[in-house]
Amino acid sequence: MSPLRSVLVANRGEIAVRVIRACRDLGLAAVAVYSDADASAAHVRHADSAVHLGKSSASKSYLNVEALLAAARESGADAVHPGYGFLSENAAFARAVADAGLTWVGPSADVIERMGDKATARATAEAAGVPVVPGSGVVASVDEAVAAAAEVGYPVLVKASAGGGGRGIRPAADDDELRRVVDEARREAASAFGSDAVYVERALQHPKHVEVQVLADAHGGVVHVGERDCSLQRRRQKLLEEAPAPGLDLALRERMCAAAADLAREVGYVGAGTVEFLVEDGEFFFIEMNTRIQVEHPVSELVTGVDLVVEQLRVAAGEPLSVAQDDVVVRGAAFEFRVNAEDPDDDFLPTPGEITALELPGGPGVRVDTALAVGDVIPPFYDSMVAKLCVWGPDRATALARARRALAEYRVEGVPTTLGLHRRLVDEPALVDGTHDITSLEQILAQIS
Amino acid sequence: MSPLRSVLVANRGEIAVRVIRACRDLGLAAVAVYSDADASAAHVRHADSAVHLGKSSASKSYLNVEALLAAARESGADAVHPGYGFLSENAAFARAVADAGLTWVGPSADVIERMGDKATARATAEAAGVPVVPGSGVVASVDEAVAAAAEVGYPVLVKASAGGGGRGIRPAADDDELRRVVDEARREAASAFGSDAVYVERALQHPKHVEVQVLADAHGGVVHVGERDCSLQRRRQKLLEEAPAPGLDLALRERMCAAAADLAREVGYVGAGTVEFLVEDGEFFFIEMNTRIQVEHPVSELVTGVDLVVEQLRVAAGEPLSVAQDDVVVRGAAFEFRVNAEDPDDDFLPTPGEITALELPGGPGVRVDTALAVGDVIPPFYDSMVAKLCVWGPDRATALARARRALAEYRVEGVPTTLGLHRRLVDEPALVDGTHDITSLEQILAQIS
Repeated sequence: MSPLRSVLVANRGEIAVRVIRACRDLGLAAVAVYSDADASAAHVRHADSAVHLGKSSASKSYLNVEALLAAARESGADAVHPGYGFLSENAAFARAVADAGLTWVGPSADVIERMGDKATARATAEAAGVPVVPGSGVVASVDEAVAAAAEVGYPVLVKASAGGGGRGIRPAADDDELRRVVDEARREAASAFGSDAVYVERALQHPKHVEVQVLADAHGGVVHVGERDCSLQRRRQKLLEEAPAPGLDLALRERMCAAAADLAREVGYVGAGTVEFLVEDGEFFFIEMNTRIQVEHPVSELVTGVDLVVEQLRVAAGEPLSVAQDDVVVRGAAFEFRVNAEDPDDDFLPTPGEITALELPGGPGVRVDTALAVGDVIPPFYDSMVAKLCVWGPDRATALARARRALAEYRVEGVPTTLGLHRRLVDEPALVDGTHDITSLEQILAQIS
Repeated sequence: MSPLRSVLVANRGEIAVRVIRACRDLGLAAVAVYSDADASAAHVRHADSAVHLGKSSASKSYLNVEALLAAARESGADAVHPGYGFLSENAAFARAVADAGLTWVGPSADVIERMGDKATARATAEAAGVPVVPGSGVVASVDEAVAAAAEVGYPVLVKASAGGGGRGIRPAADDDELRRVVDEARREAASAFGSDAVYVERALQHPKHVEVQVLADAHGGVVHVGERDCSLQRRRQKLLEEAPAPGLDLALRERMCAAAADLAREVGYVGAGTVEFLVEDGEFFFIEMNTRIQVEHPVSELVTGVDLVVEQLRVAAGEPLSVAQDDVVVRGAAFEFRVNAEDPDDDFLPTPGEITALELPGGPGVRVDTALAVGDVIPPFYDSMVAKLCVWGPDRATALARARRALAEYRVEGVPTTLGLHRRLVDEPALVDGTHDITSLEQILAQIS
């Protein structure tokens, strides 16, 4: 594979800026793409050149495969980085990119497809010896679902096999409830994901969400870059993440990280990926693999010094990983706070609008990733996450202290954001102790409101 | 000693903000002080409370010992952090603070005095077995100077014993020139430093400026936190620093770091300090010790993870250092770029004025320390350094690549700054190779102009 010269960044917002920065650090040209609403957006200002995609709606722009391929042709880019969200886990897009003779910065379309179907991913994990949450294969009827639930034990979750990102999931506490929700879940899955395949999985009660970052190259090199705790979630959407995972038994951590690397090896993975687990009562269970860079990747970068996006680009260019497993040494602790243009006091309603003032935090241990600048208008068409604050400290308590300080310094005016909520969360006992699990944030929010 | 609760930060600008951040990270209250010109400055906004000192001129405000002591009394502060510059190496101020029953965040007044007199500092270093640049003791006459020069060898420098920060230094290439400059140097020293004592030192031709960061507590704990290269200087003022020092022989580095720790032990040092050396032809020579935090301290923080200002505060409170020597592990490489409100195209004339637009760089490896915000007016009364950009990478080449990217992103409008010069410097072959010495910057500037 010839080395890359120019990368089309098929995304917007902070992740587009993040990828452009990695391109610059490697001396690669970065081509931005933009919708009508983003004509003067930060990712366009940061790039070496930019190509217009179409109207503001995502389907006409960042989800528009033809327009993206045309932009790559027009700009002479020789690779496409999809970021996260949008088309980043769309096997058809990955295939179209490769078919156009371009380098896809990510695993092969086949691997995306295999891990994108949850039932197949579960089976693959099991085959690789990775523990999964007790559950069934795809159930074709209500009766099959009830039979499956009898085996795995209540409470259960009915999950869309083609789902992801926390969507398409229904809980059931007993046979009656299960009978009510299965068909509902299948109809919803069909309309949301184009497939009505669902399966049944045991619902853990107070698990932590812990995920392992993996990196793999085309020469058989596979490393894990430690784990992250992403248990603070609202409606299965992550809000605050950290590395390493607090309160995790060391032997369990090692087995989990090794399992993630095994899975990557098993599927012939190439690129950066994340293997997500639930951890409860000293056991870990595979839930899914994300075949792309994650929002929360900077916390792993802060504790290891490994630049994950640079590694993605290296690997895509056919180079070996720049780190071996022994080079990955976790130092200190890091947190990420998602700054969403949402109003936590109004059921997290998105709050598009103009940024009228902005002061970014700084000093020791603070990393800011954002595409915001004063005068920018946050459009209503896309994800509401507009910035990430990441903080590192030599230990978890110091990192949290720095987080309090940086959150106090951070000022965004013009739109409500989640900054105020984060200022409360960093003093919540469950977070301070590191005992929080995936039910904690909703409990905290219920107490606050 | 009782633990601290509240710290008066006897400074302004970015270092005041830096100290306030350390206070916050430790849960200490921070009291700012301000002159008329700084009534709405960033360090005032960041602090828990603020006390007005006096008119804008430094002598009426940040150099006004009585006003500072009154501010400490009025605010109920129990410690004083002097930052750098202003009164940070003023033994009389340190003594006055202690006499007022307050904790001085720094070494004792006696140690400041001893290391502040350059001839005494040289003698102290020699007694501790630390090599010094061949030179004399204080010379009382022109003839004594000429005799001393005959021993150390030309070219020489005539230095004010009470000088510092690169001021009060005159070169002489031979007897004739030396005879001309000695009395001149003595008169200048008398007027600038209140003492006409001067001494003669051999002028090295192409040395590197390498300094070692030390930390010491009141319980006998002394560690070094690695070295920094600060060779890029204009008129003996540092502009760009890095850690670790490039191209330094490992055995030499170890001996130099050990020598710095020995010196700190020898003088009963407590706090953070810097031992400055010149390095030439595989030898190192002590030049001076700075008994305070340095502007360029963040590069050491970035490569070691040690928070030097937090350690200063811990040690001042009577606690032991939080790190032993074995805990100090250098990882990767870091650069600091001083953003001065000066016009490099107009002989570095200070350029006070209003900041009309500001975009800070971000992303992996970038640390910004500044007191700037849009609408702030840089006053003409103080030092022209308004911000520091620091960049870390897993290796020197990556750190430099990130520096290029971050410098390209950094936008300050309203006043000329040194950012444009830094954008050129990062591509200078001598810097890229790490072969630069203390003559390099002036050579580069001569070529540019």
